Amino acid sequence: MAPLACSILVTGSNRGIGLELIQQLVEMADPPEHIFATCRAPAGPKGKTLNDLASKHSNIHVIQLEVEDQSSVKAAASMVGSLLHGKGLNLLINNAGVNSYATLETVEQQEMLSAFNTNVVGPILVVKAFLPLLKKAAQESATKEMSCQRAAIINLTSKLASIGRGFEVMKGPMYPYRASKAALNMVTACFALELKEEGILSTLIHPGWVKTDMGTEQAPVTVQDSVRGILNVLANLSAASNGAFLDWEGNTLPW
Amino acid sequence: MAPLACSILVTGSNRGIGLELIQQLVEMADPPEHIFATCRAPAGPKGKTLNDLASKHSNIHVIQLEVEDQSSVKAAASMVGSLLHGKGLNLLINNAGVNSYATLETVEQQEMLSAFNTNVVGPILVVKAFLPLLKKAAQESATKEMSCQRAAIINLTSKLASIGRGFEVMKGPMYPYRASKAALNMVTACFALELKEEGILSTLIHPGWVKTDMGTEQAPVTVQDSVRGILNVLANLSAASNGAFLDWEGNTLPW
Repeated sequence: MAPLACSILVTGSNRGIGLELIQQLVEMADPPEHIFATCRAPAGPKGKTLNDLASKHSNIHVIQLEVEDQSSVKAAASMVGSLLHGKGLNLLINNAGVNSYATLETVEQQEMLSAFNTNVVGPILVVKAFLPLLKKAAQESATKEMSCQRAAIINLTSKLASIGRGFEVMKGPMYPYRASKAALNMVTACFALELKEEGILSTLIHPGWVKTDMGTEQAPVTVQDSVRGILNVLANLSAASNGAFLDWEGNTLPW
Repeated sequence: MAPLACSILVTGSNRGIGLELIQQLVEMADPPEHIFATCRAPAGPKGKTLNDLASKHSNIHVIQLEVEDQSSVKAAASMVGSLLHGKGLNLLINNAGVNSYATLETVEQQEMLSAFNTNVVGPILVVKAFLPLLKKAAQESATKEMSCQRAAIINLTSKLASIGRGFEVMKGPMYPYRASKAALNMVTACFALELKEEGILSTLIHPGWVKTDMGTEQAPVTVQDSVRGILNVLANLSAASNGAFLDWEGNTLPW
């Protein structure tokens, strides 16, 4: 079996879905040659589990990357470039994000801007910085079909970002979270349009409502099942999924 | 003929669609009792046309309001409250907004955040500040049907904010504009859900691609035709249009 991709980068990989992605990637029958596990503060206490995992697997590289901080993002891209020794990066998973439950009464300007910065501007800064490595991977690929194996950007979003389905799934308004994820959906559609010619696939994935710190214990889906589903969906992506909004089981969601 | 609404507030009303809205409202056979024409700098040179118009019509009140500045928004709400002498505000039109043509290569963090601040956070701050006046109008209305005559929030958006239709209408990516307007669409859907019980209608209007400073001379629709269409659509809004995404001719657009 071919690996999902030779090189994969995941942001926000010290906990929740990000950590489980690293865990399942490294345990694959044919694991990626390079797994770049990035997070805001790998040296701090929140990075311990990730560092313990990396100490057992030489293909995991733990790298500091704060998505809202352009200099941190650029330094990470430069470090990844060095570790790839001239090869490109196949798969970039923008997983880092923040939640927020604000209602109209409680929502504040700063909380809105902060959610936009992390959930929308962050993925843009990351894509800009890693674009030369993604382009290289796309160009040097043996196949010209679009896939995660060749070159892809996966943005983790939420079905709460579905405006069309919004009323159905809405418990509380969650203005900063829902507005920023809807904006991320648009940004991903723009990536899909702008990067198609370069052979880079751009797809949105809703991971399900998952039992993590963010999703809480109430959530119906375990992080293991969600990530197993996501990796299965990623393995089957093609040009037909460019700009698509899919859930962890491969279903298409309405905008 | 009943007026569209007894009291109407329009942000960004010193030029383009905002100014034309004021112009056509004041010229109606049965004009609103109060037209609150707000803009960032009414005292400056860009406020001259609006002030000239207001000097001829005692029902136009020109008020300073900078949508991203919470203290300016609150001061404007307080001023409008005084001028209404205990009555509510029927119709709030969030028209102020900024454009941006950035591509992935040229887009910068600050430009993204600035577009989100003006196009998304601004309308939220305005709605929060004017909500007591909108609620009062809804409560004191003779009819319990939703309408602009009773109490409504109209957010001006763009068909470029349609993710589903995006590829079709896209000339350039315009990341800050498209992402912020998609987020505004989500925010308006949240308003529609959260304010329905209060009897306040929330609807999105795409004004067409209009010959204004923002739309450029290339645009196919005159500002007069666009505003005539918008006012016609507004006059016919009902509960069925709560949370809808309509264009200036009343057509529903996909999310």
